Amino acid sequence: MSGTNKTTVLANPTLAEAASIIERAFAGRRTLIVAGNCTVQYVGRASSTLELGERLLIIKEDGALLVHRPAGYEPVNWQPSGCFFHVQLKQDRLEVHGVRQKPRESVKVTFDSVFMVSSLDLEDSGEFLLFASEEDMHKAILLKPSLLEEGFKPISYEKKVEPGFVDVYGVDKDGKLVVVEVKRKTAGKEAALQLARYIDAIKAKANRELRGVLAAPSLGKDVQRLLETLGLEFKALDPKKCAEVLKKAENAKLETFFTEELP
Amino acid sequence: MSGTNKTTVLANPTLAEAASIIERAFAGRRTLIVAGNCTVQYVGRASSTLELGERLLIIKEDGALLVHRPAGYEPVNWQPSGCFFHVQLKQDRLEVHGVRQKPRESVKVTFDSVFMVSSLDLEDSGEFLLFASEEDMHKAILLKPSLLEEGFKPISYEKKVEPGFVDVYGVDKDGKLVVVEVKRKTAGKEAALQLARYIDAIKAKANRELRGVLAAPSLGKDVQRLLETLGLEFKALDPKKCAEVLKKAENAKLETFFTEELP
Repeated sequence: MSGTNKTTVLANPTLAEAASIIERAFAGRRTLIVAGNCTVQYVGRASSTLELGERLLIIKEDGALLVHRPAGYEPVNWQPSGCFFHVQLKQDRLEVHGVRQKPRESVKVTFDSVFMVSSLDLEDSGEFLLFASEEDMHKAILLKPSLLEEGFKPISYEKKVEPGFVDVYGVDKDGKLVVVEVKRKTAGKEAALQLARYIDAIKAKANRELRGVLAAPSLGKDVQRLLETLGLEFKALDPKKCAEVLKKAENAKLETFFTEELP
Repeated sequence: MSGTNKTTVLANPTLAEAASIIERAFAGRRTLIVAGNCTVQYVGRASSTLELGERLLIIKEDGALLVHRPAGYEPVNWQPSGCFFHVQLKQDRLEVHGVRQKPRESVKVTFDSVFMVSSLDLEDSGEFLLFASEEDMHKAILLKPSLLEEGFKPISYEKKVEPGFVDVYGVDKDGKLVVVEVKRKTAGKEAALQLARYIDAIKAKANRELRGVLAAPSLGKDVQRLLETLGLEFKALDPKKCAEVLKKAENAKLETFFTEELP
């Protein structure tokens, strides 16, 4: 075995050696990685069986479990944090059991050989920051119009309307035209006046009722009052939320697993 | 370094040693695991930054990438299969770049220290089988009524109606009562006749229009004709699909990340 207290690694261990490292990883709430030939049984609200094959088992310090095959970004089996684990050494195999109480679920990973086992004490408090540009925010609204409001249907975006380009353009659930101006930071008076200019330009051509919506994470001082005076509306739109929509849509196009809508 | 051609493992490598193993893993399309202190930058339709912390980087033979923090079942960064990778050794850090062309996306993982690096040649052709019981299928319909049809609203399930229990009971989008009989295998004539008995029993009490739906993966010989004669309907319902709904709903309750609906 090689490594320090932070890192324990063993290549091609016997099942007994692997069991010993796994047991200590569970006791020490360490991150555990086991590569080996295994089957996986899951029983919970549904149930599943994964036939024999070579995979990675990852168990985290918080009790989350992942089984990864050698291809694809999705785990084939997984459990959220809060599982309790134990390891059992049988004559010619090693069983790792994970159990969750609420709801009652269990996963059993049975190895007949282990290629690598590693136990790590990882510290991670780094922040994850997700960003979106204004254009990202336009695209996110097109992908998920309910970000703006229920029933909104976009018609086009970055549409040329003198004196410039309208960010997003669509109709609301009552069939009214909606012109949306998007800002990725706190929107000031200039954004409100810019939107008013577009509205005026479109009103001069189209003889229809028209709504102007300023979509931004927040409004600057006195901008709400200005919007009211101009007959315009404000909609809080979080760039981080937009970034998530884009990132997910990206992956949804490629993989079907996570794209189905949940109730 | 320890291991065979199947398994290469090194604990606490220098950055140069790690770079060498990583490079050979990419060239050989092997599964790579790197544990270390790193930052992650993602640029694509959105962009993100992950500050310094200790994590696992997993890159699979098909070019899928995962970055896992020590807690939670979700990756903090991920890329679907099809990325191209290269590794770059700088003076005091190691950079792993992953790039995808369509759409243009890139991930950069920058390590200042590596605790463990492992490269594996994994073979996995085992089949993954997901099962649902009839009761699971009832629950799946309650969780996601659109499995049955758009606009369906369940009222109750396993409701006692002489001569037994109705599986799922609800109203359709037009307000009509719907009685659903669920079978997890090909439904035979007995299932159709059983549903007809429930319908008759309920009709005798409730003075309302009533639909009877037999939900099953498929229908046996001549059962479609029997259903028509009895004034009943068939809806194809896949037990595997039901199992996925349950499994996802389970995790959705605990974690918010994958639960948001996509457009």
